[in-house]
Amino acid sequence: MAKAFVIKRRAHFADTDMAGVLHFAAYYRFMEEVEHAFWRSHGHSVMSEHGGREIGWPRVATSCEYFAPVQFEQVLELALRVMRVGNRSITYEIEFRHEGRRIALGRSTAVCCEVIKRGFRPIAIPEPLRQALVAAAETA
Amino acid sequence: MAKAFVIKRRAHFADTDMAGVLHFAAYYRFMEEVEHAFWRSHGHSVMSEHGGREIGWPRVATSCEYFAPVQFEQVLELALRVMRVGNRSITYEIEFRHEGRRIALGRSTAVCCEVIKRGFRPIAIPEPLRQALVAAAETA
Amino acid sequence: MAKAFVIKRRAHFADTDMAGVLHFAAYYRFMEEVEHAFWRSHGHSVMSEHGGREIGWPRVATSCEYFAPVQFEQVLELALRVMRVGNRSITYEIEFRHEGRRIALGRSTAVCCEVIKRGFRPIAIPEPLRQALVAAAETA
Amino acid sequence: MAKAFVIKRRAHFADTDMAGVLHFAAYYRFMEEVEHAFWRSHGHSVMSEHGGREIGWPRVATSCEYFAPVQFEQVLELALRVMRVGNRSITYEIEFRHEGRRIALGRSTAVCCEVIKRGFRPIAIPEPLRQALVAAAETA
Repeated sequence: MAKAFVIKRRAHFADTDMAGVLHFAAYYRFMEEVEHAFWRSHGHSVMSEHGGREIGWPRVATSCEYFAPVQFEQVLELALRVMRVGNRSITYEIEFRHEGRRIALGRSTAVCCEVIKRGFRPIAIPEPLRQALVAAAETA
Repeated sequence: MAKAFVIKRRAHFADTDMAGVLHFAAYYRFMEEVEHAFWRSHGHSVMSEHGGREIGWPRVATSCEYFAPVQFEQVLELALRVMRVGNRSITYEIEFRHEGRRIALGRSTAVCCEVIKRGFRPIAIPEPLRQALVAAAETA
Repeated sequence: MAKAFVIKRRAHFADTDMAGVLHFAAYYRFMEEVEHAFWRSHGHSVMSEHGGREIGWPRVATSCEYFAPVQFEQVLELALRVMRVGNRSITYEIEFRHEGRRIALGRSTAVCCEVIKRGFRPIAIPEPLRQALVAAAETA
Repeated sequence: MAKAFVIKRRAHFADTDMAGVLHFAAYYRFMEEVEHAFWRSHGHSVMSEHGGREIGWPRVATSCEYFAPVQFEQVLELALRVMRVGNRSITYEIEFRHEGRRIALGRSTAVCCEVIKRGFRPIAIPEPLRQALVAAAETA
């Protein structure tokens, strides 16, 4: 199983809603933040240029299960694992933890694309980026 | 199959990201907006009081598949269907359409809860609210 | 005094915070929505092309005064007035009203710019766009 | 002049817009984050209880001037100063800096209130909270 890449993220006031807890859509922004931190930890940015083309990673599927509410100012651990690296796509799993307890579990699949006017064109993941991602996925 | 409840929603500037299209997390706010409009169409609010208790509907699971990017200022149709009404939970499916084309497909399951200090306590969906939801789900 | 351009906007759940009311930063997104609706009412988009250049309107100053809280699902009137049109800039005032009562008052000054890589370059407002804006500002 | 309280904050992808830079409304969420970190540095939370009452700090006025765009993944310094502490209100100034350069300058005035059903009731700032804030404002 892939080793997790972990960051801490505090739940901010603007992330809460009138029910008094973290709004369910905010979890998706948290998932993206740990994903981009994972990329930076490998010396990459999710928005980059390869061979004169601007590369982005639009999502094709995201999901989240919620096990317990998150309170204002709680500091969560966001633990990302690379579950699968395809020729063009990558799938992450992100575990949300608070004080050792699983709070939520998210998944996200993104596709490597050239950013073109008003959209995207899928492309093969550039080497050696793909190798770095595969290595991250295979870490015991 | 349940009849869809449909609203229109424009993609606003603040919903876009630097890739030039609707940010993937914004779809979840759109899903919530049509859900709450559906409730209003039945004379209810998602936040309400029943028998002196404050009732809310926290999510236990959400997901979205993305089929095509959404551009700034496009007007989407959000078509909500009630897929399942349990004793305590409800599952919606929301289709995102642009000019007749399916753009995205979301799902959301929420649980009827009493809102208590720093959290929620699941309860049976109050009647006649449950009857209204079941009727919406069964509409041919 | 300029005639107001008015739209209605409902306060959505994701716009609220744990204090139970519309979050203060959400007002700025509302201000932008009425601004862009105003542009559309003149047949323009805030992001456009003129003479092969992409034109945008970054802000140089925004502000808001808050007079009363906004509740979930309240429908506000957003009344925009063009206060000043300069060679390169435009200043709006946006009044937030609920049931005839002033809830908040915002201001925003934006500068006409060419969108360039990683930033903006101020330019004169293209004619006849400037004429349309001046006409809107001068309407009695 | 008050000593600044400083945190670092990265500009995330969801904070950007289709013009490719940090969206102007996101600055207000950044301002709130440093404000709440300032409170925590004094052992307080912006949402708290004093004498059985829930205390909150709704805004009465906010503003921001923007001097240069902020790019995705830039790390900003947010430097908060307490400008004024009244009997019921507090005014902050927040400077946004990137690599030593001033990027934006915000202001925010909040009022100490009891959180009541569907709104707020202004109250005097509880001692010794007020003393801590005055001390922060007066630091040379």
